[in-house]
Amino acid sequence: MLHSNLSVNNAGHLVIGSSDVVELAIKYGTPLYIVDEDRIRENCRKYKDAIAKFLAPGSAVLYAGKALCYTGVYKIMVQEGLCADIVSAGELYTALRAGFPAEKMYFHGNSKPDDEIEYAIDVGVGHFVVDSLEELEKIDQYAGRKKTKQKIFLRLTPDIDTHTHRKISTGVLDCKFGTPIVTGQAEELVRTTLQKKNILLDGLHCHVGSQIFSEEPYLQCAEVMVDFIADIYRKIGWLPAYLDMGGGFGVRYTENDPEVNYEKMIENIGATLSALCSDRGIPIPALLLEPGRSIVGDAGITVYRVTGVKEIPHCNNYVAIDGGMTDNPRYTLYGAKYTMLLANKAKKIADYKCAVAGRCCESGDLLGEDVAIQHPVKGDLLAVLTTGAYNYSMASNYNRIPRPAMVAVCGGEDHLAVRRESYEDLLAMDTL
Amino acid sequence: MLHSNLSVNNAGHLVIGSSDVVELAIKYGTPLYIVDEDRIRENCRKYKDAIAKFLAPGSAVLYAGKALCYTGVYKIMVQEGLCADIVSAGELYTALRAGFPAEKMYFHGNSKPDDEIEYAIDVGVGHFVVDSLEELEKIDQYAGRKKTKQKIFLRLTPDIDTHTHRKISTGVLDCKFGTPIVTGQAEELVRTTLQKKNILLDGLHCHVGSQIFSEEPYLQCAEVMVDFIADIYRKIGWLPAYLDMGGGFGVRYTENDPEVNYEKMIENIGATLSALCSDRGIPIPALLLEPGRSIVGDAGITVYRVTGVKEIPHCNNYVAIDGGMTDNPRYTLYGAKYTMLLANKAKKIADYKCAVAGRCCESGDLLGEDVAIQHPVKGDLLAVLTTGAYNYSMASNYNRIPRPAMVAVCGGEDHLAVRRESYEDLLAMDTL
Repeated sequence: MLHSNLSVNNAGHLVIGSSDVVELAIKYGTPLYIVDEDRIRENCRKYKDAIAKFLAPGSAVLYAGKALCYTGVYKIMVQEGLCADIVSAGELYTALRAGFPAEKMYFHGNSKPDDEIEYAIDVGVGHFVVDSLEELEKIDQYAGRKKTKQKIFLRLTPDIDTHTHRKISTGVLDCKFGTPIVTGQAEELVRTTLQKKNILLDGLHCHVGSQIFSEEPYLQCAEVMVDFIADIYRKIGWLPAYLDMGGGFGVRYTENDPEVNYEKMIENIGATLSALCSDRGIPIPALLLEPGRSIVGDAGITVYRVTGVKEIPHCNNYVAIDGGMTDNPRYTLYGAKYTMLLANKAKKIADYKCAVAGRCCESGDLLGEDVAIQHPVKGDLLAVLTTGAYNYSMASNYNRIPRPAMVAVCGGEDHLAVRRESYEDLLAMDTL
Repeated sequence: MLHSNLSVNNAGHLVIGSSDVVELAIKYGTPLYIVDEDRIRENCRKYKDAIAKFLAPGSAVLYAGKALCYTGVYKIMVQEGLCADIVSAGELYTALRAGFPAEKMYFHGNSKPDDEIEYAIDVGVGHFVVDSLEELEKIDQYAGRKKTKQKIFLRLTPDIDTHTHRKISTGVLDCKFGTPIVTGQAEELVRTTLQKKNILLDGLHCHVGSQIFSEEPYLQCAEVMVDFIADIYRKIGWLPAYLDMGGGFGVRYTENDPEVNYEKMIENIGATLSALCSDRGIPIPALLLEPGRSIVGDAGITVYRVTGVKEIPHCNNYVAIDGGMTDNPRYTLYGAKYTMLLANKAKKIADYKCAVAGRCCESGDLLGEDVAIQHPVKGDLLAVLTTGAYNYSMASNYNRIPRPAMVAVCGGEDHLAVRRESYEDLLAMDTL
């Protein structure tokens, strides 16, 4: 199977962790997100172990909750001892409600509204990753009012092109994120920041993109950042305690995607960073990494009920399901490819080529084209693999479709992590 | 201004209907959807009047609620006497809760789950627009169990290419929707349907696409459908009482989009339909039209607070706002173009070229590039026009961002139509 936590049992049913997917679909209904919490923990530990082994003291893993955000996932992060990358007061609130300590949170984002900055300072968020001069000034002003000194990082643009999808390539110069180094704006921002009375500049942040399989962009990025740090140190004597290089490690959606050896990548990034720092004569900063997708991606699958099969001569076969772009907009948004199979026929040959059609009244609502699955009929259960990241978190109520439930599996047990929306839930905000 | 319901007052503020947009933003906060209910009513009446004037008796307008769905909009439709095109049990439930009569609803969709079919029959939905053999059989079986005869239309594929965006072009042969005519599958489906004991085949449905400015595709489609009807009539003596030609009439997003004269289009479609029927020797069916976008599109705007402005030499200027793809995913999905202006500086010259950056941690989260607005600073109010359709209905909680409130304006008065989500609302489904 695509991931080692997936298998097929004697009944020919797909199994995630130790749980029969067909049984879960019957018990909880469809569409259904299933998340393998054991796998999430395993992924967390891979990162933690590699960081302890290969990086400078103080280095840490931040879970980027935008990939998958519900209270249960933050409870896991508390237990596994990760920090958190949060991008809104909504994520902050969710993490707090799960008992996640505010001081271990890093508040990211290119456009933080004033009220969210105030809220984050009020609850004692550990660091802001500052993305603009306006944000810097707001933090300084409000921290002053609260008689506190707020720790921050500055997000800089390294100008690295990762050749990933344009919509998720975040390190190029012409980008809404960060302050560019090459234009001299980053140096100016560091100087301005160091003069702010209520701010402690603790580190620098950069991010090259998302769904990246090669370590090359990270190594390039490390060089740009170390050169910048050495230059600033020479000019004004300031050194960052932390270098945050973001996340973006790729996960396997299909057999064509390579398997990433995260441990090896981190070893190489660490070694390169050490060599660069030693060469430029600066101390090695603690390194922060922010995986989100690669912590939860392969831990999740989605199961749908097939509602019908339409065969149009000399055209596509369309397999219609009871979900679609409302629970997984990634094909519509990015043309993202997925591996799919019929969970109740997982032992059969997957030789039926089709397009998988979502139920929204929009012809673009597909989950894939040229997909090969077992021969489908109405009532079959279609499993889409690797949906742990950016599925539930991006879900909508388009066409007034309730968002699916999410069930967590763990050592053969299962429990509801997020309940299914009811029709009444859809009306909760409406003035009646 | 782009639409006749928009103007600028003496204070230099944007006005929608008779309401000052700056005052509304201060009163209700940002981001804020504003919907001009007078304009919605005006658009409804344009369609109703044209249909009464130019089409056969029994012809009707169906409001396609997927464009904008909240209880208030269905209350308007009840008062204006429209029928409703619903696409899910969630829309059906919402319409019912607003007092909309079930018998005036048409249940669309390529993939209706069995439980939603049962629910719709239980509450007495007027018509199903049947999209597959599986659906037909389920309706026949359940209607039989309920000892009722269910009225339906069949959705057919006319094989018309409208040259609109591929994701919203719905009339081509290779499409998840409908049953193709050219392959002979439509004729077979009509024959099968007529043999079902618990089904009354009342009409045929087709749909050419969305955001269409020319009447040409509708006229082509009318010809295909009338030829099919005449052919079926000759072969088996069956005639549809209704022909439903869907919706898709374009609305103006920018000055480059033409103004559509819906009355003239309907007159021409009606005349062509009459001529075709007379020529082929069949009675003229009542015509149903399903506008959604063109009923609510120009009735809505969205107002955001500018959080910062980032100027990168030789690259874009980025104007960051407190919303983005979570409340309006249409730029990210389709590259949709919008007209924007600063609501608090509406009299000033719009000579500042920029990209408008949403707040999501995703570089593709933009609302536009190469947009010209007034010179912006933090705190300004950015208005995006023509957001009445497919904005609120497509909104998500990505990045755990609460969905905005929607305020309705009507004769200079305003009231909350949909309240803003709270952080606590975001956790409503989470198991704590």
